[in-house]
Amino acid sequence: MAHPLWQIRPDTTYLNHGSFGPPSLPVIEARRQWQEELDQQPMDVFVRRQEAALLAARQRLASWLGTSADNLALIDNATWAMNVVAESVVLGEGDNVVLSDHEYGAVERIWQRACLRSSAELKTAVLPSRFEDPDEVVDAVLAACDERTRLIVVSHITSPTAVTLPIARICERARQQGIAVCVDGPHAPAQIPLDLDQLGCDFYTASCHKWLSASFGSGFLYVHPQQQTSIRPLLLSWGKLPPEEPSNWYDDFLWLGTRDISALLTIPVAIDVLEEIGLEHFRQQGHQLACFARQQLVEKLGARCLVADDPCWYSNMAHVELPVQDASGMQQALWDQHRIEVPVVHWQDRWFIRVSCYLYNEQAEVEQLVEAVAGLLSR
Amino acid sequence: MAHPLWQIRPDTTYLNHGSFGPPSLPVIEARRQWQEELDQQPMDVFVRRQEAALLAARQRLASWLGTSADNLALIDNATWAMNVVAESVVLGEGDNVVLSDHEYGAVERIWQRACLRSSAELKTAVLPSRFEDPDEVVDAVLAACDERTRLIVVSHITSPTAVTLPIARICERARQQGIAVCVDGPHAPAQIPLDLDQLGCDFYTASCHKWLSASFGSGFLYVHPQQQTSIRPLLLSWGKLPPEEPSNWYDDFLWLGTRDISALLTIPVAIDVLEEIGLEHFRQQGHQLACFARQQLVEKLGARCLVADDPCWYSNMAHVELPVQDASGMQQALWDQHRIEVPVVHWQDRWFIRVSCYLYNEQAEVEQLVEAVAGLLSR
Repeated sequence: MAHPLWQIRPDTTYLNHGSFGPPSLPVIEARRQWQEELDQQPMDVFVRRQEAALLAARQRLASWLGTSADNLALIDNATWAMNVVAESVVLGEGDNVVLSDHEYGAVERIWQRACLRSSAELKTAVLPSRFEDPDEVVDAVLAACDERTRLIVVSHITSPTAVTLPIARICERARQQGIAVCVDGPHAPAQIPLDLDQLGCDFYTASCHKWLSASFGSGFLYVHPQQQTSIRPLLLSWGKLPPEEPSNWYDDFLWLGTRDISALLTIPVAIDVLEEIGLEHFRQQGHQLACFARQQLVEKLGARCLVADDPCWYSNMAHVELPVQDASGMQQALWDQHRIEVPVVHWQDRWFIRVSCYLYNEQAEVEQLVEAVAGLLSR
Repeated sequence: MAHPLWQIRPDTTYLNHGSFGPPSLPVIEARRQWQEELDQQPMDVFVRRQEAALLAARQRLASWLGTSADNLALIDNATWAMNVVAESVVLGEGDNVVLSDHEYGAVERIWQRACLRSSAELKTAVLPSRFEDPDEVVDAVLAACDERTRLIVVSHITSPTAVTLPIARICERARQQGIAVCVDGPHAPAQIPLDLDQLGCDFYTASCHKWLSASFGSGFLYVHPQQQTSIRPLLLSWGKLPPEEPSNWYDDFLWLGTRDISALLTIPVAIDVLEEIGLEHFRQQGHQLACFARQQLVEKLGARCLVADDPCWYSNMAHVELPVQDASGMQQALWDQHRIEVPVVHWQDRWFIRVSCYLYNEQAEVEQLVEAVAGLLSR
């Protein structure tokens, strides 16, 4: 193990922090302590301490993300947050929602259902086949929009393809045309700097159990002040615990019936951990290893990349296309034969490998991966 | 501590298992172990083991509840389950939903919103002021229904008043009139025997972190086969993890984005614990102590009861009306001055106390409570 604060199972070479980012030891300990107190005296925890703890966690996250706490709801994950947006955005018959062709499958499903229910149309913006010029990406997104477009849904860092998209420029152009933007950002927090107020989007959905390494089941929904009156929580409970009553958009996310929200409460600890390590150092180290991974995969496998070799397009994930027609068994084979965890992605009838580089990863692990993939490809 | 398997915080006299039931040590240990494995190797847990573990937990719970696993979805809590029912039941303009006047506040909120959205009416069935004849209760519920009633929502054991309602008879009468019934049952599992297939309801919502003592954030939704095609999950994600696709009503509850579902996985352990102790013994011991609590509160405080002294009306919760006009500060005072956790409930402009009796509770704790309440009332 290359970092004392992360304890990956010893048999595993874990190169998939982007899917599920194991929490650091301080995060695990913070959660364990909260759960222990909860299990021994639930009244004291749920009724007397939970709301204040949740609001404090929200405040810390909001400051870290460059926005006001009033614009943030803590939610288990980005998928949940995206469902809230889909429930809240009013679509009329004939309106449309534009998604890029790099969006996450579950997000597509969410918007298919939302559009179907409202007799609205789901449109796809086809992004460039090679990412070299940010303006080309912005143009491609806006080209798919028309006067009936109510919302653009676009990833900050795409999931199947690991591309960092020029979100600020997309938001700027969309705003000029009066179109709202929902940024799907589960891969962004910690991996890249984030200033939500400056970004200018209407909604931002994210998970904190990826690059921020908070506990599993932690994320948030950012809502621009202009959109807050339209927010409809999916789950309705008391809002605030009686005798108080919910009075703003966020209150209905505070109390969703009895459940364990300790994962959300680890967010401040996760921020502390990365700040102590140094976010610049964290990003540089990860990016350097991702560069190395990309270079090795290109050189040793003859793999191609979707993005130019520029940090504006990728940070801590290396992503290459595998030079093979069918890699459907490869992810499982890498695990079975080499105990390597890495996603082998099927996207647009091609196969890709996405290598996440975190603080605990080492160059030797990447070399091991490249060798293993080369071996599997040569069969 | 009166039972070696429950570890209540030593400073606390905990008489509120009905609100939040602390898990037993084997349940805590099962959860801790799952979380430890999850945190060290999330791919192995989420992707390779979680679905099978969830389905096995569902199977065990279904058998225990007297129904088929196909009729059950595991969900964090009863409130969430009730939200799913409210999202799924189709209401037309002018239709109505009937709730008893003993329903839980959050449940009322859920149906207020659902009715408002559909221009349907929310009607209240006023139950008898004194519970002596089950037929009077059934008649009161059905008297509130008319030809536009689409659903009756009624608790198995009411929350503010701790009354066990004659649910089987209500279901039978409603069926004769073609009205669907949703039973709100968070207090029922373990506290009273439950045979879902025999009960004859359309929906049953419950929590397993109350009397069953599974971890916080564990519950279920039962849906009668006839109603399953109409179920709409609130949160949409992949359903089943790709490349599989959801194929029945339950699949969309299997994978709701990355989150920690370990609480749900403790359900089989919680059942094992109570079966080993013996459910009959568990119920008898709790009921005996509840009888004692009721008797003491009546004798020493001059308190009145809503229900006749018959086990058909109450099991492990004693519930009496406090002979006082305003008890708004009493719950907090019992905690501050006596370290007793017990809910003092404001319902229909009267004040009640609800005493939960679990395996770890002792007669001396009830005596301590009665003395403390008497002291507060005499000021």
